[in-house]
Amino acid sequence: MRRRLRGPTLSRMEDTLLVKPDPTDPRLTRRVTGVDHTGARIEASVTVERPLTLYLNGQEIVTMMTILDRPEDLALGYLLNQNMLKRGDTVTAVEYDDDLQVVVVRTDRRTDFEEKLKKKTLTSGCAQGTAFGDLMEDFEQARLPATAEIRTSWLYRLLHRINTLPTLYLEAGAIHGCALCVQDRPLVYMEDVGRHNAVDKIAGWMFRNACDPADKIFYTTGRLTSEMVIKTVRMGIPILVSRSGFTAWGVELARQVGLTLIGRCKGKRFVALSGEERIIFDADLRYVEEESARHWRKNSREASDAAE
Amino acid sequence: MRRRLRGPTLSRMEDTLLVKPDPTDPRLTRRVTGVDHTGARIEASVTVERPLTLYLNGQEIVTMMTILDRPEDLALGYLLNQNMLKRGDTVTAVEYDDDLQVVVVRTDRRTDFEEKLKKKTLTSGCAQGTAFGDLMEDFEQARLPATAEIRTSWLYRLLHRINTLPTLYLEAGAIHGCALCVQDRPLVYMEDVGRHNAVDKIAGWMFRNACDPADKIFYTTGRLTSEMVIKTVRMGIPILVSRSGFTAWGVELARQVGLTLIGRCKGKRFVALSGEERIIFDADLRYVEEESARHWRKNSREASDAAE
Repeated sequence: MRRRLRGPTLSRMEDTLLVKPDPTDPRLTRRVTGVDHTGARIEASVTVERPLTLYLNGQEIVTMMTILDRPEDLALGYLLNQNMLKRGDTVTAVEYDDDLQVVVVRTDRRTDFEEKLKKKTLTSGCAQGTAFGDLMEDFEQARLPATAEIRTSWLYRLLHRINTLPTLYLEAGAIHGCALCVQDRPLVYMEDVGRHNAVDKIAGWMFRNACDPADKIFYTTGRLTSEMVIKTVRMGIPILVSRSGFTAWGVELARQVGLTLIGRCKGKRFVALSGEERIIFDADLRYVEEESARHWRKNSREASDAAE
Repeated sequence: MRRRLRGPTLSRMEDTLLVKPDPTDPRLTRRVTGVDHTGARIEASVTVERPLTLYLNGQEIVTMMTILDRPEDLALGYLLNQNMLKRGDTVTAVEYDDDLQVVVVRTDRRTDFEEKLKKKTLTSGCAQGTAFGDLMEDFEQARLPATAEIRTSWLYRLLHRINTLPTLYLEAGAIHGCALCVQDRPLVYMEDVGRHNAVDKIAGWMFRNACDPADKIFYTTGRLTSEMVIKTVRMGIPILVSRSGFTAWGVELARQVGLTLIGRCKGKRFVALSGEERIIFDADLRYVEEESARHWRKNSREASDAAE
């Protein structure tokens, strides 16, 4: 397994990433001057956040702060994850105006967004951006594929690949990342200032590409909260992985629908608090240990510039 | 300075904390069973999040997910930071019902919350929980005390004290912390599942205790985003410190009003990208280096279980 973590196989895998961050995109970071701990003048890269206003069929829905790299995916994913757009809806157009920073999603069905917006006022802020009533009804009826599995050998290779990707996080920090994965490979990696934007962009990408969620694994740098669980289940993905920790309600909801919840991934260590029957413990931990020791310092440094 | 970091002085200082986390409070964490990376059954502590519904004078405002340790502070701070309550307002009562998990704030002034709620629908989610229009008008007129200062010797001692506090974070992870500090001492340390809740609870505590912000320093485990800057400025605090990174808009807003913005604090290192004229570089970095090496492993481990 140690061999497979390096060499040509890995490189080829990384080339198969369908969407990946572009830390060199000059619109995504800005160089600003300041001082360091010695008082010396320095230049630092900081992540750029921009407002994006979303309309659904002529009705203004929300203004989001985003790195604005994928406004169409973000718009679609936001509407899907807020239950304002159903998976069966026909989207007739997604129009983005770069000057106005406005994105318009058009559907052929008359949407009942006004009622939903009223409910939305009841929730706000971090870990609360989800309208409860509707979403929870849907959630309770969700079914996830029981046949999905995650091998620990996949998990360790997956984490290794994600941790060694060139990202905006490494360039400027203060950003969250999410990955849509299959087996041991990330397929799509998205970053954004809000962790929910990163998830929503992946949901939008999946919708546009008619991506089957049944054999997928979802990775997030963020915590395993109720909202992250609800969004993953809405997307139909049976396995959710994070290097961060759990909240009690996140665990409770995951257990209700049998979502596999793996958190606190660090080196060879992890903890699964729901759906552990999907995990196959096939990795040889002696080799994982070596790998993790080699990457420990780097990963600690990365993760400790805690995003959000 | 090395001596001052240990010994009786430090212990005495920590005893002066007016509000601090209680990681032993059984309502705040729950033990849940799961499996670890070897497949062995384990028990883990997870943070408990509960819904709290806030009313202002009989009008339902919002339902927040919180650890629910200080509902009154959270209610007041939320209303203040959303500009629904002005600093001059007379609060006639704050009533919390533990069964219903409802908190009611009563004022003698007729509040114009209905209009504000309409604006609020335009923003949502992580890093977007702030209603723009009103808040930004207030923000642009804000004035912060130019005479405030932060010595690097204070900063290092402050970070050391914060990093060695017993917290819910160390107990269960997946939580954000904020501290209201004076010179090298944290006065109030609050934690919550949403970083904005932690800030709001401190704002509520300051309001209830008529706390003068002019000589205070605000510390957060979260990123230095536009929202964190706006909230700190609303609270009237001239200096904001974080171990996390910056966003470009956070830096821009901080510069507009001359807020001192210090981020990426790690060991002896930090970066200041706004208001650096308030920083006095008086620490002897040779000793700081030793301290930081001693605590490096511990702090990395803590911070890398990245809260949100």
